[in-house]
Amino acid sequence: MYSFDVKKRVRYGETDQMGFVYYGNYAQYYEIGRVEMLRSLGMTYKYMEEELKVMMPVISMQVRYLRPARYDQLITIRTTLKELPDTKITFYMELFNEEDKLLNAGQVVLKFLDPKLGRTISVPTELLDKLTPYFEKA
Amino acid sequence: MYSFDVKKRVRYGETDQMGFVYYGNYAQYYEIGRVEMLRSLGMTYKYMEEELKVMMPVISMQVRYLRPARYDQLITIRTTLKELPDTKITFYMELFNEEDKLLNAGQVVLKFLDPKLGRTISVPTELLDKLTPYFEKA
Amino acid sequence: MYSFDVKKRVRYGETDQMGFVYYGNYAQYYEIGRVEMLRSLGMTYKYMEEELKVMMPVISMQVRYLRPARYDQLITIRTTLKELPDTKITFYMELFNEEDKLLNAGQVVLKFLDPKLGRTISVPTELLDKLTPYFEKA
Amino acid sequence: MYSFDVKKRVRYGETDQMGFVYYGNYAQYYEIGRVEMLRSLGMTYKYMEEELKVMMPVISMQVRYLRPARYDQLITIRTTLKELPDTKITFYMELFNEEDKLLNAGQVVLKFLDPKLGRTISVPTELLDKLTPYFEKA
Repeated sequence: MYSFDVKKRVRYGETDQMGFVYYGNYAQYYEIGRVEMLRSLGMTYKYMEEELKVMMPVISMQVRYLRPARYDQLITIRTTLKELPDTKITFYMELFNEEDKLLNAGQVVLKFLDPKLGRTISVPTELLDKLTPYFEKA
Repeated sequence: MYSFDVKKRVRYGETDQMGFVYYGNYAQYYEIGRVEMLRSLGMTYKYMEEELKVMMPVISMQVRYLRPARYDQLITIRTTLKELPDTKITFYMELFNEEDKLLNAGQVVLKFLDPKLGRTISVPTELLDKLTPYFEKA
Repeated sequence: MYSFDVKKRVRYGETDQMGFVYYGNYAQYYEIGRVEMLRSLGMTYKYMEEELKVMMPVISMQVRYLRPARYDQLITIRTTLKELPDTKITFYMELFNEEDKLLNAGQVVLKFLDPKLGRTISVPTELLDKLTPYFEKA
Repeated sequence: MYSFDVKKRVRYGETDQMGFVYYGNYAQYYEIGRVEMLRSLGMTYKYMEEELKVMMPVISMQVRYLRPARYDQLITIRTTLKELPDTKITFYMELFNEEDKLLNAGQVVLKFLDPKLGRTISVPTELLDKLTPYFEKA
């Protein structure tokens, strides 16, 4: 298992007239979570796209909204991998407010795609190698 | 069952550098679908908020992404109710491109909230009355 | 001079907690205005990008905000060309609410770019030909 | 004069199919700049809204786009006040990429509003007091 936390402040433009973060904007929070998780492993999505020629389109997303996030709060975005990726990678997402209350929880599944062939491929070895140590049996 | 179609053109600002609509932007398409579905019944969300003093926060969303939507395509947003709402209402969403291919499918569940009491309430009678004819047994 | 009106409904996700459309979202309204103006002439931006291999990056924008736009209002986006384009094209933008009150006014200047050469070019003849009749002296 | 720098990473959802940050998204970068500048002075916009009961709607914005910002770049947002606010406050904005090249420059003018009276007011004393030391003649 590998888990990583990053903080993100709620911006005015992300709220709606209900006074909370608009439900559609959490997808961007989730993107921040998984991209910074990869960076914490020494891997960037930019590098994967430009050097490894791998794209990662999202194939499904689920969100359960429990509490609203409000303007100017500093949200903790927790991103967790519970299993090693193969042709897909599943990010488990949890957002917490400053009182450490769970705001929402979700899953985002992406696949690995060779954009030239237009075909699903396996997780790049370079990424797998960085993840494997966190998933080895004791 | 009640189903309603509305069309929405893909805008430049909705695409990302993959050349497709960003996965997070479909939540706005889904909003358009359910709001225009309500309007087709003679009910607006604005009226519910301002006159009936009922808010409808989203409590969950699921999306399966099958095909990408591209810039300038005219997307058909199909919104379907399969059961009458009680304290919750579930919108089944399907998006189709100009060739009538399914782009993505999802579900969005909202609850009815009395913002003054901060409490979940039942579907407003005025909305239920408009929906009931479509759900009567033959 | 050439002027074109298109309507756009204010969506929930476009409002902020002040209860109005977020000031940054009008750039998308302006995009809708100029793209639909081009379409009204029989020209699409998609065609320019894909067939004529011309891109149109924005080089400046000015907005004066006079009145707020509110949720669910049907906004009229008026886009006007006051002079024929050369290497640049200036769109004059005006947004009106349902009572025909001016909400905001702005200008967006785009240039014509050959993305392969990375160089500014003149307006494509095909677009110029469509515009010229509207700018001929009486 | 008072100037403040804050960094912001370009997210995937902020790019468009041209491969650059969409021109409309810089308004959010500008919001981040001015809000963090206020915070650096010991003042938050949230506090002004909730405690001082002052709102700050944007009344004009100008942007000159010089160079594009690209995915995953760490952008420096520089926000400068060149004069003390009265009923208005003008933020001068400059964005720089990692090579310290100017990406775009702009101005955003906001007014101070008493939302209850619906009337423009003077800058709150509490904010003015924090700014004055930076504008005193030598």
